[in-house]
Amino acid sequence: MIFDFFSEIRNELSVVEEELIKAVRSSDPLLTETATHLIKAGGKRLRPAFCLLGGKFANFELNRIVPLAVALELIHMATLVHDDVVDASLTRRGQPTVKAQLGNRISTHIGDYLLGKSLILISLYDDPLIPRVLAETSVKMSEGEILQIATTYDLDQNIKDYFYRINRKTALLISASCQLGAVACGAPRQLHQTLRRFGHYIGMAFQITDDILDMTAEQTKLGKPVGGDLRQGIITLPAIYALRKGSVRNRLQEIISKTDKSDQEIHEAIDLIIGCGGIDYADAISDKYIAKAKKELAGLPDVPVKKTMQIIAEFIGIRSF
Amino acid sequence: MIFDFFSEIRNELSVVEEELIKAVRSSDPLLTETATHLIKAGGKRLRPAFCLLGGKFANFELNRIVPLAVALELIHMATLVHDDVVDASLTRRGQPTVKAQLGNRISTHIGDYLLGKSLILISLYDDPLIPRVLAETSVKMSEGEILQIATTYDLDQNIKDYFYRINRKTALLISASCQLGAVACGAPRQLHQTLRRFGHYIGMAFQITDDILDMTAEQTKLGKPVGGDLRQGIITLPAIYALRKGSVRNRLQEIISKTDKSDQEIHEAIDLIIGCGGIDYADAISDKYIAKAKKELAGLPDVPVKKTMQIIAEFIGIRSF
Repeated sequence: MIFDFFSEIRNELSVVEEELIKAVRSSDPLLTETATHLIKAGGKRLRPAFCLLGGKFANFELNRIVPLAVALELIHMATLVHDDVVDASLTRRGQPTVKAQLGNRISTHIGDYLLGKSLILISLYDDPLIPRVLAETSVKMSEGEILQIATTYDLDQNIKDYFYRINRKTALLISASCQLGAVACGAPRQLHQTLRRFGHYIGMAFQITDDILDMTAEQTKLGKPVGGDLRQGIITLPAIYALRKGSVRNRLQEIISKTDKSDQEIHEAIDLIIGCGGIDYADAISDKYIAKAKKELAGLPDVPVKKTMQIIAEFIGIRSF
Repeated sequence: MIFDFFSEIRNELSVVEEELIKAVRSSDPLLTETATHLIKAGGKRLRPAFCLLGGKFANFELNRIVPLAVALELIHMATLVHDDVVDASLTRRGQPTVKAQLGNRISTHIGDYLLGKSLILISLYDDPLIPRVLAETSVKMSEGEILQIATTYDLDQNIKDYFYRINRKTALLISASCQLGAVACGAPRQLHQTLRRFGHYIGMAFQITDDILDMTAEQTKLGKPVGGDLRQGIITLPAIYALRKGSVRNRLQEIISKTDKSDQEIHEAIDLIIGCGGIDYADAISDKYIAKAKKELAGLPDVPVKKTMQIIAEFIGIRSF
């Protein structure tokens, strides 16, 4: 069964898609081709969708909101492309990994190019709140990335560190998308602040669920090997919880600390985490964020897309991919 | 003999220096430390200086111009940090180069962080021209970087390709610095457009001279081995000229095409380029740009810093480091 969460904004999303293609055009045909390829490779377009939905709570105007929706996706894409940059030390047995072969330098500059294109779109807006929120967001997103690198293999990090990190990594841009879509359509302060908080809670739940799925999803749905975070020493909420449990702590530490883990060790670590309740714990935290998101929704005007927002909030915590 | 080109704006430049340090502060102490270290490592602060000088042609106001001057240096620093990102293939004899050891991922995200901080400062300005010019500039700078990678080892590129590339790589941001300093201080359109053109010509001459010095400077002054561009397959103006000369073309092609060149081969290539007039040719082109810059200066009001601008124009073409 397929349910289209964005059926109410399907037409608007296809306009965003067309404008995304137009936005990355360059005078250099090769660059246009590479950037277009990146866009056509797909993505959930979650940020443009939240932006459009946010706008539907205010005086929705397609022409006003589309450049912003496109800019948000470009910022998101730029961070994905920059995440592809790897260290020389990540070469395996002397051979660069597939990602490294694509070219760190190209990834860096294409990410900058996409970011630059987003700045052009953002500079079209007169309301200074839009560039200001996005500038603050982009600084914090970089801080989050650097923090994630710095806390890799840090087995002593606590839950607060984790929340701080996933807010920067994911929630802030989703939050900005919900808020600024409304700002672009002339929403009063109280409305766009409520949407900002809604987006924050949804974004937190989204990333926690992502981190759970990294351990529990079927590999075919995930599209990558299970346990990728543990493999790279990225300690997420279920692992932080489990590492506090005396019964599993020592063995878990031992496995996670290894820089080269076997598939069997990864599965053992996941079983230890599940066994001591790490996944249930993370699920419960995600549910709390969803409850908070729904509470914010209650304060929003009864426009048709409000129902869509409610369904999205429900789905984020129960999705299996 | 030391001549301080920026003596007239020395106080203003120290304010910029203080604000640069403040601008990169993060809630993460390690990030603050790394970014502060990058700033304290120095740099000519050419872009802030041009920005301040541009402002002196209008209603100079320190508070109005400093955030922009800081933002311009942060953009420049971000591009330098991103230029440090290397490909896995650049490991030498299986060992990553020094740059690669510093961490491609950290370089990418620190560059993004500096860029984000510049966006915060830029978002303070009400005049939409400032974010718009800088957004266009940053897109074109990324295009220039990608083009430089794409044209590496391309022995058939022509002079037009080279100008296109160095405009994006260097001239555009210097041009924007001259123009926007004046814009931030309320300059009328004609004035900031003249400064924009002046900056373009100066920027082009600056990069051509840089490319000449890469072949002719003493290694101690250059701070890196002579012939670095040729070594990496970056074809600059003197080489493009020489590659058209039948007498040296074949041998020059042979050397430049090699991915692993000996010091002796680099020196032979440089001697071939000098011998057939490649350096003189590039010098003459640089002089033409300087003449154009001076012509633009003539149209500017007679403020005290005009003399400084003239001296800078003279110096750019004759500097030896």
